[in-house]
Amino acid sequence: MALFYQEDFNASTTFLNPEESRHLAKVLRIKEGKEIDVTDGKGHLYRCEVTTTHQKKTELKVIGQQYLEKKNCYRHIAIAPTKNLDRIEWFVEKAIEFGIDEISFLLCHNSERRTLKTERLWRKAISAMKQSGQLHLPKINELQKFEELIQSNPAGEKFIAYVDFENPLLLKEALQSGSNLVMIGPEGDFSDNEVDAAVANGFIKVSLGDSRLRTETAGIATAHLLNLFCQ
Amino acid sequence: MALFYQEDFNASTTFLNPEESRHLAKVLRIKEGKEIDVTDGKGHLYRCEVTTTHQKKTELKVIGQQYLEKKNCYRHIAIAPTKNLDRIEWFVEKAIEFGIDEISFLLCHNSERRTLKTERLWRKAISAMKQSGQLHLPKINELQKFEELIQSNPAGEKFIAYVDFENPLLLKEALQSGSNLVMIGPEGDFSDNEVDAAVANGFIKVSLGDSRLRTETAGIATAHLLNLFCQ
Repeated sequence: MALFYQEDFNASTTFLNPEESRHLAKVLRIKEGKEIDVTDGKGHLYRCEVTTTHQKKTELKVIGQQYLEKKNCYRHIAIAPTKNLDRIEWFVEKAIEFGIDEISFLLCHNSERRTLKTERLWRKAISAMKQSGQLHLPKINELQKFEELIQSNPAGEKFIAYVDFENPLLLKEALQSGSNLVMIGPEGDFSDNEVDAAVANGFIKVSLGDSRLRTETAGIATAHLLNLFCQ
Repeated sequence: MALFYQEDFNASTTFLNPEESRHLAKVLRIKEGKEIDVTDGKGHLYRCEVTTTHQKKTELKVIGQQYLEKKNCYRHIAIAPTKNLDRIEWFVEKAIEFGIDEISFLLCHNSERRTLKTERLWRKAISAMKQSGQLHLPKINELQKFEELIQSNPAGEKFIAYVDFENPLLLKEALQSGSNLVMIGPEGDFSDNEVDAAVANGFIKVSLGDSRLRTETAGIATAHLLNLFCQ
């Protein structure tokens, strides 16, 4: 069954936006009378019958609905976007396949990329959510300064993953069930000042192991680990 | 220190091939008298002085050498290549960053991609090895029939990762220290006949969890898990 995404979809507001409408009519060539699934990205799944196809506004009739509870854990990764946009898009896609709740983007001292448009990332996120059959769209935050993130005082355990071959604490040993936030630095890693500031704000220094990982690979490994702890 | 790869490099055969020579001279603009590192992809690291730069054959003098033992585990993934080549290249890059020993490519009943040139994958592999500072280049096998692989009787534990939400055995629970081979199926998954044949040949059915993962994501998750068990 084809899965569509429509923000704020509910039993009384039952149409698809132009992008999804075009996809339904032009790509998948779904006709009136067929059934499709629609999620609002907030855990609801609506089984719908297509009543009117239109390239800009497909109208639907809800014929069934269910709700998928969020898992009892919160997985948040804050990562410095890579210079190469493809790499950060891959990270977003894979993190969503593994099931992430929130992605933040950090502007760090050593960041090569100092601006980020999140619109394309949103599209990747929606596509990955639909493709992997998930019903919860993660929160994706705009690029923010490192200092803002560490002072935002999120709930749960907080980690800064740092290339430090002397550091004996591995993230896989340190993760707790429940809420976890893990920060991943830019290609040139976090500066010493940033590491100190994070520690002063309650972050625990961790290592991802003895491999030298690219930023997006560290992010993917972290998303996978967070998911392993959330099953 | 820049790291170069030269097959069969040793203390008496001390030059770089045309590709690495061009990279040294034209991209990194390294001059005579400078020091570089060279690995043979078999665990050796040679500290060398550049004696003659040339676009086709850079000559070197070995001034130091060390050897990195392989880890005491063998990580082998056999995967059906995806239709989209980018995705399989990403898998190769990430698997090498996580540290894999062998990659096999499977031709399965449901494979959309039925041919595979491994030359580009080799380049990706060499680049990922150098970038992640590893000294062991994994073995990368040519595309082979599923039946050949399962009958090849490799040492160690053998798993077939299969989308089966009924299957309670998770790969993360089933992996053993030592040697592991994990098979990952194509976009349409393994056929029932293939799963039965694998089981008849000593493979254990496992699941990667309750997320619906793309082929390359399943491969990356497996490479990461194998690495977590190998530290």
